[in-house]
Amino acid sequence: MKTISETACFGGTQGVYSHASEVTGTQMTFGLYMPPAPTGAVLWYLSGLTCTHENAMTKAGMQALAAETGTALVFPDTSPRGEDVPDDDAFDMGQGAGFYVDATEGPWAEHFQMESYIAQDLPETVFTAFELDPDRQSISGHSMGGHGALTLAMKYPRRFRSVSAFSPICNPSVSDWGVPQLMGYTGGAEDHDATLLLEDRGLDAPLMLDTGTSDQFWDKLGTEAFLAALARTRTPAEVGLRKGYDHSYFFVSSFAPAHLAFHAEHLA
Amino acid sequence: MKTISETACFGGTQGVYSHASEVTGTQMTFGLYMPPAPTGAVLWYLSGLTCTHENAMTKAGMQALAAETGTALVFPDTSPRGEDVPDDDAFDMGQGAGFYVDATEGPWAEHFQMESYIAQDLPETVFTAFELDPDRQSISGHSMGGHGALTLAMKYPRRFRSVSAFSPICNPSVSDWGVPQLMGYTGGAEDHDATLLLEDRGLDAPLMLDTGTSDQFWDKLGTEAFLAALARTRTPAEVGLRKGYDHSYFFVSSFAPAHLAFHAEHLA
Repeated sequence: MKTISETACFGGTQGVYSHASEVTGTQMTFGLYMPPAPTGAVLWYLSGLTCTHENAMTKAGMQALAAETGTALVFPDTSPRGEDVPDDDAFDMGQGAGFYVDATEGPWAEHFQMESYIAQDLPETVFTAFELDPDRQSISGHSMGGHGALTLAMKYPRRFRSVSAFSPICNPSVSDWGVPQLMGYTGGAEDHDATLLLEDRGLDAPLMLDTGTSDQFWDKLGTEAFLAALARTRTPAEVGLRKGYDHSYFFVSSFAPAHLAFHAEHLA
Repeated sequence: MKTISETACFGGTQGVYSHASEVTGTQMTFGLYMPPAPTGAVLWYLSGLTCTHENAMTKAGMQALAAETGTALVFPDTSPRGEDVPDDDAFDMGQGAGFYVDATEGPWAEHFQMESYIAQDLPETVFTAFELDPDRQSISGHSMGGHGALTLAMKYPRRFRSVSAFSPICNPSVSDWGVPQLMGYTGGAEDHDATLLLEDRGLDAPLMLDTGTSDQFWDKLGTEAFLAALARTRTPAEVGLRKGYDHSYFFVSSFAPAHLAFHAEHLA
């Protein structure tokens, strides 16, 4: 693991690191915020389409409450990158758009192993390099990252103490943000659809979900289907449909304190 | 208006009063909590099946935060009562089960005018007798009273600054708690169904809704349809599906402080 930068932030350290990932076969960059008095608790934050490790780290304002509560934050990248890594002209496919699944199809299969990267490779690196507690992990994310947080929490039961999502893509098997990408990467979207996974496997961690009513990508998210599935399966959840907020980090940063507090409570 | 009792409570006064209602043609009893330093703000709390004015007043623990925030609380009865008032052997029809609608059918039409009672008759009495501000009203309720709060907020737009509901009946046109009663009282259930009203008229007030995942009457509530309708209509809302809570006042009292705080914020 190589240190790219370390910067003082709310009494702790905002670092950026890179490491050679076995599963993606590339160098991967990630951000990690270490609070001044770490309790060992870790929150994984998965970013959305076009994002890198950097977006949430600089725009979500999460470090303040992470410092207060002693929670470490990890900001992974959203895909493998590099000249040898396949890409697509569309912003929502290829580099910057890994959808947190392990690709099995075509040119993607070699490097696009983002589920294994987030679930195995990066945790191994993080828990080796930093004194953090694998028994106290939570997960969150925005948009495509909300999809990642929800689906990984359901695919890896008992791993996360709590899960939250900001304007998540949560019914991708019927969305333009889901069908082309998940078909392209894995040959099918159903196995990676939070609404379907909820009915099939359930969710064992407490959930907080917020989406803005003025989200410009509302029709791609599948909020209606997911809320109906939450009720149908009686899944405990705190859901906010937030008046006038859109899909941006102005929305994420407005509700990040509530999500951090929620996770800190369950990580305590 | 006649004073039945007045009792000191959190520095204010918990009163019970009765008055002759024109619309029901009966004496009606209601509870009213006046905080020690009233701001003029009023929260109407509608109770559920079998309840009187007394249940929430004694079991919801709402007076503590009402006192802190200067909010008056009104606890109406759930139906007209008396020997001359029709009743039914079922606990969910007749006395104690007015469903907050104006009956048009059969023996019910004469006295069961609960929509007009809550929307016109009782407010006239309350705003005449107490120094409270008609421009600062909010509404809440539990179960059948949650149905009442939701439907009245939609039928009387701009009247309420905020609306909340505890385990509301919210899709009664397809429920045993709705079809027989609303058919019996009014000849049809659709016009009094919160899910259908939301799609038809929308809701102009901020909404908080909580329901317990162990609610023993879950199948009668229609939570799934209502949450789907919230998302479909992009209605701002804060929704909690609360793990392990049931339909009782142990549930209501657990989340009453959050609802009171929500209303106080919008009544400020």
